[in-house]
Amino acid sequence: MKPIICPGFNAAGVHAGLKNNHEKDLGLIYSETPATVAGVFTTNQVKAAPVLLDMQRIKTGRCRAIVVNSKNANCCTGDRGMQDAVAMGQAVSRTLNIDEGDVMVASTGVIGALLPVEKIIAAAPELVQSLDPEGFMDCARAMMTTDTVPKLVHRQGELNGTTFNVLGLAKGSGMIAPNMATMLCFVCTDIACPADTLNALLKKSVDNSLNRIVIDGDTSTNDTTLIMANGRSGISLEDNDGIDGFQHVLDNVLFELAHDLVKDGEGVTKVVQIHVENAATPDDARAIAESIANSPLVKTAAFGEDANWGRIAMAAGKAGVAFDPNLLDIFFNDVQMASKGLSCGDRTEAAAATVLKQPEYSIIVNLNMGKGQASLLTCDFSIDYVKINADYRS
Amino acid sequence: MKPIICPGFNAAGVHAGLKNNHEKDLGLIYSETPATVAGVFTTNQVKAAPVLLDMQRIKTGRCRAIVVNSKNANCCTGDRGMQDAVAMGQAVSRTLNIDEGDVMVASTGVIGALLPVEKIIAAAPELVQSLDPEGFMDCARAMMTTDTVPKLVHRQGELNGTTFNVLGLAKGSGMIAPNMATMLCFVCTDIACPADTLNALLKKSVDNSLNRIVIDGDTSTNDTTLIMANGRSGISLEDNDGIDGFQHVLDNVLFELAHDLVKDGEGVTKVVQIHVENAATPDDARAIAESIANSPLVKTAAFGEDANWGRIAMAAGKAGVAFDPNLLDIFFNDVQMASKGLSCGDRTEAAAATVLKQPEYSIIVNLNMGKGQASLLTCDFSIDYVKINADYRS
Repeated sequence: MKPIICPGFNAAGVHAGLKNNHEKDLGLIYSETPATVAGVFTTNQVKAAPVLLDMQRIKTGRCRAIVVNSKNANCCTGDRGMQDAVAMGQAVSRTLNIDEGDVMVASTGVIGALLPVEKIIAAAPELVQSLDPEGFMDCARAMMTTDTVPKLVHRQGELNGTTFNVLGLAKGSGMIAPNMATMLCFVCTDIACPADTLNALLKKSVDNSLNRIVIDGDTSTNDTTLIMANGRSGISLEDNDGIDGFQHVLDNVLFELAHDLVKDGEGVTKVVQIHVENAATPDDARAIAESIANSPLVKTAAFGEDANWGRIAMAAGKAGVAFDPNLLDIFFNDVQMASKGLSCGDRTEAAAATVLKQPEYSIIVNLNMGKGQASLLTCDFSIDYVKINADYRS
Repeated sequence: MKPIICPGFNAAGVHAGLKNNHEKDLGLIYSETPATVAGVFTTNQVKAAPVLLDMQRIKTGRCRAIVVNSKNANCCTGDRGMQDAVAMGQAVSRTLNIDEGDVMVASTGVIGALLPVEKIIAAAPELVQSLDPEGFMDCARAMMTTDTVPKLVHRQGELNGTTFNVLGLAKGSGMIAPNMATMLCFVCTDIACPADTLNALLKKSVDNSLNRIVIDGDTSTNDTTLIMANGRSGISLEDNDGIDGFQHVLDNVLFELAHDLVKDGEGVTKVVQIHVENAATPDDARAIAESIANSPLVKTAAFGEDANWGRIAMAAGKAGVAFDPNLLDIFFNDVQMASKGLSCGDRTEAAAATVLKQPEYSIIVNLNMGKGQASLLTCDFSIDYVKINADYRS
């Protein structure tokens, strides 16, 4: 197997004692040379201390390391929380002998409990010693909360005969909704790129990937997406040359991570693409897609493999968007369930049942109103989702 | 037990063959004399045929009967659906020998299947024969879908020494969210009231009751609330005298029905009042209350009896309303969990656990920003909710 690396970057994941069972709970990504950085953060009014810290630090456009812990979100922790986030960064910057301001900090887990930062400080030397060009899988594991698998995507591209790398890792599972970065997602690349350009590229890719997924419609207090660019490949995007090629690879990495996040969402048994087409406007299409993607009745029907297209019509209708219900076509993949707002009859049920048994399929809603379209990825709402979230803290 | 009656009104419920097991599925409410009528209907863009029919008919402000079926919503059924809704009304108007336009029609159940209207037409004579002043419980039973108990509330008031009655019946269970009438709710009163005044009174009461409950955040295509006033008590609200007294009784009836709807929501084990206080504005308070009331993570925590106040802070923060997280106080009843955005510590956990074991309690969020407040009733999200909705059609 090809090693998952990004030249000039090292990563690590260790057990600092936050999780039980010796599972990894503290991760680190380190660039051997100064890198530029860009980020997207949660839109939640309640932001965790590390998010507030990173939003300050990212203004320099410069970064050397990202340190991340799971099990505790360091959110609703007040001044002490900010002190702990700073201390968590210092523990790493001291050991790495880099500027404290060049460390980004991220946390994920329970809200409202103080971070046991002394465990993180104690583990920092081991964490730094574990840094390895092939350490990204360990770091991805250390970020996991209710995720069942680590999420890691590595893609290469070529510009003027030179290869470049884009390596992304993410953790998700619950509390995921559009219009935000996802839970935690870190991307390393060996191109060189000014921070402001990197910021524009990241925002564009995020809007087409991580901002287009729905697991439970809740929005985390800790969502953070960061990208670091260290220039080790010798390719520079400074003169705009090759920007489209790089954007394309970044899109692919983030879209694949987004898909992996939905697939591994809490209790998920189905990944469902919601595609709304021929709405009056793209905004209308997106509003309707979000309403369908978030509807508990649509999502429980998906879990039950029930071809209940009436609930899809209901969810479209509650989006606050004007359309003509008598023009509505609804499909499961290529199986048409409703035509011009009416049932296509029982004969389509068997074909639909075959589609709905699959782990991944599309719901296509054609409004026949205009040319607006939008796609989102969502998932079913299962008994396990409830079980997982009924006793998450215990 | 005092009989549940409203002078001048009769009601009935029979089995027309839509449900299995000989359960009642067709209901009727009939006013012996002409009555005024007012209504509130779903805001969903996709409206069932009977809703569209009633929205036309209610313009006369006059009504003699309401006919209602369960098991089939007669929605997404096109021209045929409208013909069926008209035929359903005619079946009753012919047998009662009243004007066809004076019959309101309501349906609830599966979306997208044609109404077996021939069964309803065949059952109409038996339905009319069954009319009885004490028949409201039968009618309430005939409206039930996944409801486990019929919902019926009867209150009396007094104006100038004369007693008047307000009798309401409702069905709910899933697909309930604010900013709409609930699923189906019919109210009879023996006051006399012009239709436009009745309309204003109904809207005001609905906004404080049926529009303040959340079960799953979905919005039905069939929601209808109707009130008929037949004047049999001899009391008239024409000259505004006694309007406040009547509004108060109507408020009580609708609030109690709203509470009963939440309590009997699909899979519900907890009824939770969300009270947001001291927001910058009442609109801010309502937006935050709705965000908390709709959050799957808050609702699954309620099911798990988990004092996870961090999720409440998260849900408040995603409401799109500006506030200072460092001023946030959160309580379960009188047990304070967070003060000025910080945990009150583990010592409150035991007290909170006692509150969360109760079938009904309040979540109080104090923003300490201004004077805006809002209350909503919501419920937990249980394993049974998923089970019920995964195979509703089968």
